[in-house]
This record gives sequence, C-alpha cells and structure tokens, in this order.
Amino acid sequence: MKQYPDQLSRAHKKFLRNLFPDRESSFDDGTLLACGVDASQRHAKPLALVRPQETAQVAELLKWAQAERVPIYPRARATNKVGNCVPVRHGVVVSLLDMNDILDIDGRDFVAVTQPGVITADLQKAVEAQGLFYPPDPASMKISTIGGNISTCAGGMRAVKYGVTRDYVLGLEVVLPGGEVIRTGGRTQKNVVGLNLTRLMVGSAGTLGLVTEAIVKLLPLPETSASVLVGFKDLGGCLNGAEAVFGCGILPTAMELMDHNTIRALEMHSAVPWPEGTGGLLLLKIDGSAESVKTDLGRIEEALRAVAVTFMEQGSGADQERLWELRRVISPAAFNLAPDKQGEDVAVPRGKVAEAIKGYHAIGEQLGLTVLCFGHLGDGNIHVSTMYDKSAGEQEKALKAKQKIFQLTLELGGTLSGEHGIGLTKAKYINMQMDKTQQRLMAGIKKTFDPLNIMNPGKVV
Amino acid sequence: MKQYPDQLSRAHKKFLRNLFPDRESSFDDGTLLACGVDASQRHAKPLALVRPQETAQVAELLKWAQAERVPIYPRARATNKVGNCVPVRHGVVVSLLDMNDILDIDGRDFVAVTQPGVITADLQKAVEAQGLFYPPDPASMKISTIGGNISTCAGGMRAVKYGVTRDYVLGLEVVLPGGEVIRTGGRTQKNVVGLNLTRLMVGSAGTLGLVTEAIVKLLPLPETSASVLVGFKDLGGCLNGAEAVFGCGILPTAMELMDHNTIRALEMHSAVPWPEGTGGLLLLKIDGSAESVKTDLGRIEEALRAVAVTFMEQGSGADQERLWELRRVISPAAFNLAPDKQGEDVAVPRGKVAEAIKGYHAIGEQLGLTVLCFGHLGDGNIHVSTMYDKSAGEQEKALKAKQKIFQLTLELGGTLSGEHGIGLTKAKYINMQMDKTQQRLMAGIKKTFDPLNIMNPGKVV
Repeated sequence: MKQYPDQLSRAHKKFLRNLFPDRESSFDDGTLLACGVDASQRHAKPLALVRPQETAQVAELLKWAQAERVPIYPRARATNKVGNCVPVRHGVVVSLLDMNDILDIDGRDFVAVTQPGVITADLQKAVEAQGLFYPPDPASMKISTIGGNISTCAGGMRAVKYGVTRDYVLGLEVVLPGGEVIRTGGRTQKNVVGLNLTRLMVGSAGTLGLVTEAIVKLLPLPETSASVLVGFKDLGGCLNGAEAVFGCGILPTAMELMDHNTIRALEMHSAVPWPEGTGGLLLLKIDGSAESVKTDLGRIEEALRAVAVTFMEQGSGADQERLWELRRVISPAAFNLAPDKQGEDVAVPRGKVAEAIKGYHAIGEQLGLTVLCFGHLGDGNIHVSTMYDKSAGEQEKALKAKQKIFQLTLELGGTLSGEHGIGLTKAKYINMQMDKTQQRLMAGIKKTFDPLNIMNPGKVV
Repeated sequence: MKQYPDQLSRAHKKFLRNLFPDRESSFDDGTLLACGVDASQRHAKPLALVRPQETAQVAELLKWAQAERVPIYPRARATNKVGNCVPVRHGVVVSLLDMNDILDIDGRDFVAVTQPGVITADLQKAVEAQGLFYPPDPASMKISTIGGNISTCAGGMRAVKYGVTRDYVLGLEVVLPGGEVIRTGGRTQKNVVGLNLTRLMVGSAGTLGLVTEAIVKLLPLPETSASVLVGFKDLGGCLNGAEAVFGCGILPTAMELMDHNTIRALEMHSAVPWPEGTGGLLLLKIDGSAESVKTDLGRIEEALRAVAVTFMEQGSGADQERLWELRRVISPAAFNLAPDKQGEDVAVPRGKVAEAIKGYHAIGEQLGLTVLCFGHLGDGNIHVSTMYDKSAGEQEKALKAKQKIFQLTLELGGTLSGEHGIGLTKAKYINMQMDKTQQRLMAGIKKTFDPLNIMNPGKVV
C-alpha cells in the first residue's frame, strides 16, 4: 500500500491552496505546531492546516486525500483527553471551527440541525431560548463542540436521567474518504431502516469519516430544577444515600459523588459548607415542572434523612450554582494534594462503585499516592485522579497505579473509558478489555469505510 | 461461492440430531411448515428446526452452518410484520424459545441479564416486582421476546419519553457465523471503548450474528401514572393540543393520536365516551411520583383547556385501562370499515405529522379507500392502515396507496419504517430511501460479520 507522505509536494500545496484560499490553509511552523496538540498534552506536527467553510470543500479534500493517501485529522477545540486530535502520522489537520452555524432549531420536530464547529453550550443556549433542551453536558461543554462531542460520544452529569451524546444524534452528514457524502438517519425520532450507521459514527473518533452536519434530538425544556448537597460520615453512607434516592422511584438528573480525599482537597481550597467529620458527599439535581420538583425534592430529602447524614443543603434556581461550584473546583483544588495529576474516566456497574472506590484508594495507599474519586455516581462513571509529584520521581508509581486501576475496573465488569475514549494515551491497554474477535470486526468495519486508513490514523477507538 | 443446499444430507441430519437430541431437532413436514411463517403472512419451508438450550450449542451450530453454508434463521415468537423470520433460502430455523431464563435482575447495577427467548412482558413484570422498570413496550410485548425486540429494535408507545429498545441494550452475547462468541458492551451505563457493536447489532434483524444473551438497562420504577383522553373537532385541534402539552415542559410517557376514520371505526365497534362531532383524539400518559403526576396532570389539563377541546376524561391507576382499551381495539375495530387491511409503520418528523396525515387521507380518497391514521404522535411514528376489500379486487389499489404513502413520507423527510423494519415485504422499496453508498457500507459491514451470507439471507435491513 502507498505510504503516507513525509512532506507535501509542491503540487499538494497548490491543490490545498486552491481549495482553501487565503487564511483557509496554513503551512507555517507556528500554526502547525499549535494545531498538533490536544488536552492529552501529546503532540505531533501536521503538514498542513485547512479550514473548510462548507461540505463541498471537505468532499474535495477527502477525494484528494484518498488518492494521495494523506492522513486527515479532524479537529475543533481539541479538548480530547486521550490524544484523538493529535496528528501522529502528520498529514492534514482539518479544523471544523469555521463550520459553526446552527442551521435550524425546530420546536415542532424537536430537532436542531447544526454544523460540527458549534460550541455545545452555545447550541444549548440557543435551543433553551425556544423552550427546548439538549441534555448532553460534558464538563467541557463551554469550550467543546458538537462535532467533538459526537466524535467521542461525550457524556456528562445529566447522563443519569438523559443519557449521552449517542442517544441524541438522529442523523448525520458524513464525508467519506474518497469524497462521497452520505446522509444517515434523519429528523424522525424512530427509524429502523438499514443498519444504524448514525450510532456507529458516534464515538468513532473521526476514524470512519468526517461529520459535517448533525441532526440532534431535543426535548421540551424542564421548567425548573433544584439541587441538594448531602454529607455522610463515609463512602458507605453515600452509597446508601444514593440507593435511598433511587428507591423513591425518582430518576435524578445528576448524582455526583465526592470521596474523602476530594473533600480534603476542597477544604484546603476554600470555605466549605459541610461540618467536620464529613467523609463523603452526594450532589443531586432534579428537574421538571415547578410543582413536581418541589414535591420530588421533599420526598428525596425525607428518604435521605432516613440514612445517617451529617449535613444537607438545598438550592434552587440560580442559587444552586453555589453548590455546583464546589463540584467544578475539584480539578484545581486537587493540586493542593500534589503537583501532578493522572486522571482516569473508568466506569463500573453502578452496584460495584463502592468496591471499586475502596480498591482505588487501596491502590493509592499501597503506592504511597493519594487517589481522589469523584464524579458520576449515578451512572458508575467515576473520575479517578492519582495525585503525584513528578519532581520527586513519582511518575513511575503513578503509571503503576494506572495499570492497577484498569485491572480492578475490568475485574469488576467495568470499562477503561466511560467518556474520553482510548485514542493514543490508553492504546496500549486496549487488549486488556477488547478481545481479538471484536478487534477484527472493528477493523473490518474500519476497512469498509476507510480502506486506505487515511482517517485519523494511529488511533485506537 | 458454495451454494446453499437444497436439502440436508444424511450427514447433515446426523450432525443436527447429535447436537440437538430428542425434541430439540425436528425434520417433519408439519413442524417445518409451522415454523416457516411469521406475522407478515409470508412463508417458506426450512430444512430443519432446532431448539438450542445453551450458547455452546448455538456456537457449534454456527460453526457447522458456516462450513456447510447452511442458512440460519433465528426465530422466537415470530411476531415480525415484515417477514424477517421467514426462511426464504430454506436452511435451519433456530428457535430461541427454550433459552428463556432471566439470568439476573440487579437493582444496584440497574440492569437485567436475559436470554433471548424471554417474553418482554414477563421481563417487565419480573423487574417491576423489584421496583425497577424496563420501558420499551411494543404492542406485541405480551407475546414477543426480548431477542425479537432486539432484532427489530422494537419501539412502542412509551418511546416519547423513554426511547426504544436500542436505548436500553448495554451489552450482548453474540454467536458469529463460524461459531466464535463475542460479548459486546457490559453492565456499565457509560462505555466508549471500541466501535459500538452493541448498537449495531440492535435492529440488524439477525443478519450479523445470533444474540444469545442481553444485558438491558433498567430505570427506577415510576411510582404511578395517569392518563388523559382528549377530543378535538379535527386533526388540527389534536396537533395544537400536542403542542400545548409539550409547551408545558412536560415530556409525556405516551402521546397517541386517533384520526376521524379511527374514531369512526371505534364508534362502530363499541360504546365510546366522546361526544358526537369529535374528529380527533389524543391519548396521553404521564408518570412519576404520586405528587408530581398529580401536579403535572393539572398543568396539562389547563394547557389543553386553552385549546378548543370537545371532551376530556382522565384516569389514574388501574382505572386508566379503560381509556387504553380504546387504543388497543383499533386493530379489530378497523375491520368494521373494510374486510382487508394493509398496515404501514412510517415515521415523519414530528412537525410534519399534520401534513403527512392529510396527505395519507387524500391518497385514500383519490383511490376510493379508507385510510386510518393512528399511533405514536409523540414521536411522529404513525400507523397508516389502508382498508380495502380483496374480494372486490381492491388489492391493486391498496398497493398503489402503499407506494404513494411511502413517497409522501420520504418527501416529508420521513422513513419507511419506524418500528417493523424492511425485511421481505418492503424490500423492493428500499432504494426509495437508501442510497447506493450507504447500501455499500452496510454490505461491507455484513460481509465483515457474515462473509458467506448464512445469517438470515434474503432479507433487507
């Protein structure tokens, strides 16, 4: 098979400059270095950066790229944490940031049609202005794009009640390697015609084709929401509290956990509302009509009081934000415990969360490192941060912790990634989870879409 | 490529009798004829029927079938309406009805693990006894199986709020042609490792592999529900009513529509509660905690009264069933209008429902046939029944109506099937909806899973 080019020929550059005139294409070192990194902190230098304005340009580009076997690296805000935006085989980085129009918001069809470069929070604001709701809320939503969210199948806190990005993508416009353009799915809420290419594309990390438009499902905007922050003596109390809430028959919008190490980090960071002796926290949100939120909140509080709580505080409307601010500052606060952080986004079956967290703590203790566990208790997707000090030579220990955390997660029936993917940074661990037969099937699907492997080559999905 | 065998050799039969002893295999004409039909009323005679008791037998069977190129037709209760259970290339029908154990219901993981032969309503009852909830509710749920539901990606009335089968399948055990067994996904609520083979299998109509076990997602069981039946002067009123409900920010569990022809059929069938002059009906259900259902119901009624309604009646608890009984008798009641029925399960974007139904009615009037429109307004999935009289030579007209209904549906951005699939009966219409490129991709995926085309051959997905 033809090799990937080490550099672009004069003809290549001419082609790209014609297709992407003026500032739509760049070849200068500074720009190329800047667009070769993502939130994983890995980097590689591409041969060119292009900024398509419309699908037709992408189609032309992918026709050329297939013929010349030039790797294509789609990119938007590059918030990916596992290296999926890094152009490891060089080639051309395709920034979708100029394709950033919301094409339609339809309150009767309950769909929005959007280009990939739209910031997720901007889409949310736009649909909320019309009384509509796009639930997926990855932590990055104020800076990440719908295209990126689709590429990773982004999750978020509201997944407990509302599911993840995959559950909201009804249809896609995709440019295939070679330049053909397909439109999968559509504006209908139900559709069982054909194998589900739409869902296959979501989470495929740009390895099958390049998404140039998406039809996403919307819901009616819940009238209001309310939140409760509850303290417990220990982790066991948190888990009992969570069961008490689910036992009410109410599905909370979000159910976040903070373990004792997270609490310690927050206490070192700023004033906190909970009393001393709080060893675990739950932060819950519910939504619905004003009356139902009020009644459900009362019921949840009653159920929680039956469990031994150290503290309970509720907030509604804008006032909830002070509770959620505590959740949001966990990442910066963690650095009070150690200067370096290694973060995992493993997920385990919900009933195994207690065992998992105890195990992650034990792994930390064994290696002399602090492990923080926090995040999406409601769906078993726990963020595990191993804090360490690189300057004290602890990186090796942190890597050992990673291996052990993965091993325990899989032993408990979990997965190496609930939200971020595999990409570059976890590629070497994929065989721990995925057997050869499934890898063979996935390779077959990849080959069907991208026979010359030009779409985001070098990445593991 | 090796041909499919016209008949089984002595060695073939010996193999099957050894693998499936006693009543687990059948070769007699009566049995073979009986297992060659499904709800489409198409039929074909297979060469054998086998009834596996465990996955290992299925794996042996599919290893043999691949080597001998014998078609494999998975089957459970055969409620499929488009012929997906019909063994058109003969081969072996594999009844999954003996693999009917619920293996686990876990109220902490919020999952059930089930074999494919479990009746969907039985699974629902079993999980509800533990305060849990499996939402997908195809009309056939009392007689159809989870395996069949997964095969078609069954929908139902609760899809408005809760989505369809696809949204609840977290993991699968699948036997591939050739006998390899894979386990996709798992018990975690979030998982972004690998291309999503689980979702690809759902709705693939048994053409990629044979599902022998499923892990399905459960929710906490809503405490209670309530229903409202609302009459309007005409279809336009119904649509305004639906918008008023969505405008409350409340997502109903179900939102069913009945048009004037459906109303007429029901009036001819039994006593009805609505007044004369009712030309459209909405039947709504909401669920949640007792208090929230009460408050939401009040709010919905208030919103509906602002639209011109002819009638409104609510029911809660067991008392709702009398309202839903009216919905359930539509199918038998329709035969008051004509002796034969041609049913479609098209779906259109929700905002195009009014235009679609008006168009379907016009198609009927043009051809002199009555067209009933009813069903899942909440998600745009309208059941369109063309009533005709075969004995009066109207079948040709009905087929013309089908073609026109499909054409209009696609013009409105809809899909030929929201719930039933393509299979045999709609195979010749697939090119109306699916372009060659997507068909090529799907064929490539099929070939990756099933290179010799032994899984349910002769069907269109």
